[in-house]
Amino acid sequence: MANSLAAQHISVIGLGAMGTALAKALLAGGHQVVVWNRTTSRAEALAAQGARVAESAAEAMSAADLVILCVLDDAAVREQIEPAAALLRGRTVVNLTTTTPEQARSLGRWAAANEVELIDGGIMASPEMIGGPASLVIYSGAAVAFDRHRSVLELFGRAEFVGTDLGAAAMYDVSILGAMYAMFAAFRQGATMVRSTGGTAAHLAALTVPFLQAIATSLTDQAVGIDTPADYAQIQSDEFTAAAIDLIDKAAVESGTPTDLYGALRRTLTGG
Amino acid sequence: MANSLAAQHISVIGLGAMGTALAKALLAGGHQVVVWNRTTSRAEALAAQGARVAESAAEAMSAADLVILCVLDDAAVREQIEPAAALLRGRTVVNLTTTTPEQARSLGRWAAANEVELIDGGIMASPEMIGGPASLVIYSGAAVAFDRHRSVLELFGRAEFVGTDLGAAAMYDVSILGAMYAMFAAFRQGATMVRSTGGTAAHLAALTVPFLQAIATSLTDQAVGIDTPADYAQIQSDEFTAAAIDLIDKAAVESGTPTDLYGALRRTLTGG
Ligand SMILES: NC(=O)c1ccc[n+]([C@@H]2O[C@H](COP(=O)([O-])OP(=O)(O)OC[C@H]3O[C@@H](n4cnc5c(N)ncnc54)[C@H](OP(=O)(O)O)[C@@H]3O)[C@@H](O)[C@H]2O)c1
Ligand SMILES: NC(=O)c1ccc[n+]([C@@H]2O[C@H](COP(=O)([O-])OP(=O)(O)OC[C@H]3O[C@@H](n4cnc5c(N)ncnc54)[C@H](OP(=O)(O)O)[C@@H]3O)[C@@H](O)[C@H]2O)c1
Repeated sequence: MANSLAAQHISVIGLGAMGTALAKALLAGGHQVVVWNRTTSRAEALAAQGARVAESAAEAMSAADLVILCVLDDAAVREQIEPAAALLRGRTVVNLTTTTPEQARSLGRWAAANEVELIDGGIMASPEMIGGPASLVIYSGAAVAFDRHRSVLELFGRAEFVGTDLGAAAMYDVSILGAMYAMFAAFRQGATMVRSTGGTAAHLAALTVPFLQAIATSLTDQAVGIDTPADYAQIQSDEFTAAAIDLIDKAAVESGTPTDLYGALRRTLTGG
Repeated sequence: MANSLAAQHISVIGLGAMGTALAKALLAGGHQVVVWNRTTSRAEALAAQGARVAESAAEAMSAADLVILCVLDDAAVREQIEPAAALLRGRTVVNLTTTTPEQARSLGRWAAANEVELIDGGIMASPEMIGGPASLVIYSGAAVAFDRHRSVLELFGRAEFVGTDLGAAAMYDVSILGAMYAMFAAFRQGATMVRSTGGTAAHLAALTVPFLQAIATSLTDQAVGIDTPADYAQIQSDEFTAAAIDLIDKAAVESGTPTDLYGALRRTLTGG
């Protein structure tokens, strides 16, 4: 148990795979952790590691300087938080449950009406990664509260604040996940295509991974073209991009596995 | 000029940005390079560096152990190569012009009928990268000819043979480019979404690049699931993936920039 002077009372509501990992990171950081889970048995392992197990969500919340929510979805958040409005007044709540940006903003309106400081967070890590060097959590909302609790939040991984709009963290979160699924989907499609020529997904992966890792760095440059188009000389014309993607699409048809994926990429990149 | 014992006569047909880079790499490798370009003036810089400039494509081809084609497209290849059938007999042609897999196979049928050894290649590099450590060229077709000329082809960059199907190199090429454009398209869409919350594409790039570089390595594992599904325990169910992508799609709608991109990703990854 580290520095007890800085130790805070922190509650974690929701002890699924992720909530459990968050609570462990807080215990490892030397904090006094109060946990609650709807299904009581899931709290046992944490109790053995020094967490106090509350009898109710309300009890867990009322003990805490900082309340961390990590349950299934927005509906579960509402179910736990709304009855506790009175005892949350003046406290800081960090909601690490995955929601849409509008759900985060809507919870923010509820929080403002009830004088609760709300921070929304999007976790870009799996539970095993929490607290490790590759873990990233994106936050938005109450900036002053974020600064006050930053050292606690950094126990989960890199803590990145992206704006006071409560919807911002979720929007960054889904945008990054969208790029990940785009990579996965195009790889799946491409693997089907190369297999039609006697190739293998393994061989495609061996060639694709280093190529994508190198070319990913060009997103930094592309970002200039999006944020400040006037400062940016486009490297590749939309016509070139459209023709290149059409050739990929033609190859997909030739492989016997046509797809609407490449058409969607062309429309997103060239508007046509 | 390196090892003149191993020096070969190599012709390069087409001196656009890429053909010029290829010819330079061959000259740097100590070979006797004969070049031809439809627009004669483009050969001047190479002549100054030691290339011999042929009067016609036919003259360039007839001088060579190895004929490298790098023109605009399949139609341009046909226009230059078909009249030269007789003098290409018994020679090796490497077509580095971008074509579809079926165009490469069709040229292969022409080559077989005319006793020409054909290798098709897909260049995964820009002209400045040719000969450098990050350059990759993917080849398919005549395997014995590839082995014989490998040391020459490695002057362009890493030379990867992916199969005897002449369509294979193009299929790997477009599959890798498809993954690149998927990453670019999802980043473009995501940047629009985060900007709606007061965020920036630059901030999104700073968070996305390391995330994608790390997660790209998982394609190697996903490849096992595609090549040998029986050996593979799926980490994430299709239902989970579909729900995750639907949440991203919902966020896109909330950002005021709906898109058909995420629907296409969901269909590719989950079939529904
Ligand atoms: N796992 C990851 O890799 C990952 C990564 C990034 C973000 N997240 C997000 O983190 C959150 C939790 O994920 P997880 O992996 O921990 O999920 P999980 O293992 O399935 O756990 C879900 C948790 O939500 C609780 N819950 C569900 N409905 C509830 C309700 N109405 N009231 C109170 N509690 C309720 C469950 O309680 P019971 O035990 O009683 O069912 C359980 O503690 C999700 O929003 C998820 O999207 C997860
Ligand atoms: N540049 C790249 O980054 C890159 C990367 C990978 C692959 N490639 C591929 O490499 C090939 C060449 O690209 P590039 O960048 O060098 O293009 P480029 O600079 O536009 O040059 C095109 C070349 O094709 C020639 N050409 C066009 N039509 C012809 C015809 N009917 N007969 C003879 N020659 C003809 C042009 O001759 P004139 O000078 O007389 O017009 C010129 O030499 C393309 O297939 C491209 O997809 C390029």
